[in-house]
Amino acid sequence: MRAIGVDIGGTKIALGAVDAEGNVVLRASLPTEAGLGFPHAVDRVCRAIDGILEQAGWGAGELAGIGIGCAGPVDPRLGLINNPYTLSGWDRCDIVTPLRERFSVPVHLENDADAALVGECWIGAGRGCDPVVMLTFGTGVGGAAMIGGRILRGANGEHPEMGHVAVKADGPECYCGIRGCLESLASGSAIAAAGTEGGYRDIAAVFSAAEKGELRAKRISERALDAAATAAWTLFHSFLPQRLILGGGLMERLQGPFAAAMNRRLQPATQFSHSSFAIVPAALGNDAGIVGAARICHRPSHSTKTQS
Amino acid sequence: MRAIGVDIGGTKIALGAVDAEGNVVLRASLPTEAGLGFPHAVDRVCRAIDGILEQAGWGAGELAGIGIGCAGPVDPRLGLINNPYTLSGWDRCDIVTPLRERFSVPVHLENDADAALVGECWIGAGRGCDPVVMLTFGTGVGGAAMIGGRILRGANGEHPEMGHVAVKADGPECYCGIRGCLESLASGSAIAAAGTEGGYRDIAAVFSAAEKGELRAKRISERALDAAATAAWTLFHSFLPQRLILGGGLMERLQGPFAAAMNRRLQPATQFSHSSFAIVPAALGNDAGIVGAARICHRPSHSTKTQS
Repeated sequence: MRAIGVDIGGTKIALGAVDAEGNVVLRASLPTEAGLGFPHAVDRVCRAIDGILEQAGWGAGELAGIGIGCAGPVDPRLGLINNPYTLSGWDRCDIVTPLRERFSVPVHLENDADAALVGECWIGAGRGCDPVVMLTFGTGVGGAAMIGGRILRGANGEHPEMGHVAVKADGPECYCGIRGCLESLASGSAIAAAGTEGGYRDIAAVFSAAEKGELRAKRISERALDAAATAAWTLFHSFLPQRLILGGGLMERLQGPFAAAMNRRLQPATQFSHSSFAIVPAALGNDAGIVGAARICHRPSHSTKTQS
Repeated sequence: MRAIGVDIGGTKIALGAVDAEGNVVLRASLPTEAGLGFPHAVDRVCRAIDGILEQAGWGAGELAGIGIGCAGPVDPRLGLINNPYTLSGWDRCDIVTPLRERFSVPVHLENDADAALVGECWIGAGRGCDPVVMLTFGTGVGGAAMIGGRILRGANGEHPEMGHVAVKADGPECYCGIRGCLESLASGSAIAAAGTEGGYRDIAAVFSAAEKGELRAKRISERALDAAATAAWTLFHSFLPQRLILGGGLMERLQGPFAAAMNRRLQPATQFSHSSFAIVPAALGNDAGIVGAARICHRPSHSTKTQS
């Protein structure tokens, strides 16, 4: 049950050799360089996998497969990357066929948020729980859900974008098509933009100043925390997850205040019992995508709707 | 694959003999009279089932089972009704054991909103679709989701109460613990309360006056439609359902304007393709609960978490 996990983001591709217990026994990383073209990236990923297999002393024949988590939109059923937004020019690019032909193993493609959640549910913060919802606060806000051990897919197999649930009617405009969605208020870019306007260097400066009681900074941080709390209320009334996992770069520093604001908002909720849920930090950090992508090779019902 | 479906509400218990295709071949109805005690109700339900079986000429031995949809909270895994709110005094009442002992067939208990959605997904508005979300607008607002052919259950097997997703920060207070949830703005009781305050006889009078252009009535109806539209935005970004089914008494007259307001709100959404979803009216009317409860007997993985 050894597998290779690949995590393709807008700036970096991380990959690793993952053993049957989810340990990443070897890692590699390369710049995405999406603008140099999709075949260029495929070629470098293949060589990186070669290098990892050689260093690990694993033969391709021993692999359960190669799993790929990629910044979406992706089509897991057809193995296509459709992301001209953060992967410039990668439009309907088939990543599965060239890797399958090169290594003669099953290859599975998944949305990166879904792959990270699969990892967390395997050996991380969602282990043994059902349902599990994960929110990832970074430049944007991503989300994913595991229900009955399966990734939630929407109509047409598409990935629901939970970062855009409605939160505040008079909030900032968002490219998603509504004002005041979660991402427009609580993402890294939203907090940074409000901070710049208020004269703060970066997000850390906003939250440091807020902790010292500066009113302007407190207004910015409270707007983000309030939005995150309202979104948590809504997701608990939609899914009633046993675990809500908070991940993403922003949560490395801000998981405490975000979780506290969410728990305060949920405290008076009367429509479910409070004994069986928790808001928890992601446990696997940057490895979640690699580990989850590898895990998909063990349980390929995760990777294609038609098989499940 | 014949089955008996039972739909227990606060005022009425409806039951029916349902054939293998979902046709209700015989119906019966009795007042719930919850206050007369749970054993009294069980006794009358048993006699009503006897009557239906006799009229239909079905033997209990031919039944796939008896399915019960009941106003929640219920515990489908333990077969317990826990609803002291609308079923006065019915607290941890085991409905499954007495029916099983009386008729010697499998008996399954389910939340009524979930049972209605199972019915709609079998032979109604959700047939062949995945995922499917249903909102029921009546005195309150209920919700349910079917994902991969299975009812969505929350932590501890509880039913997520989608009628209480957050919609409007400064909305009316709700017993759920937040201001401005969907139910507080768009339920029958919310519209009726605002209408009474505005001098209107009932909900129909509010919407009739709004259609004639009366400003006060328009403000009330628009507040409800706006809340429903925001909730639809949020549910589409959480679940991305292939079908959002609108049911409940309020939708008999207002399905048109509610669906139109939701579609207008979703029109600018950029995060999913618009070719594969639709907002549709419930197709089975008052039979949905009976039909869905019977269907659960065919696929009992719906009725207990431990079996699925």
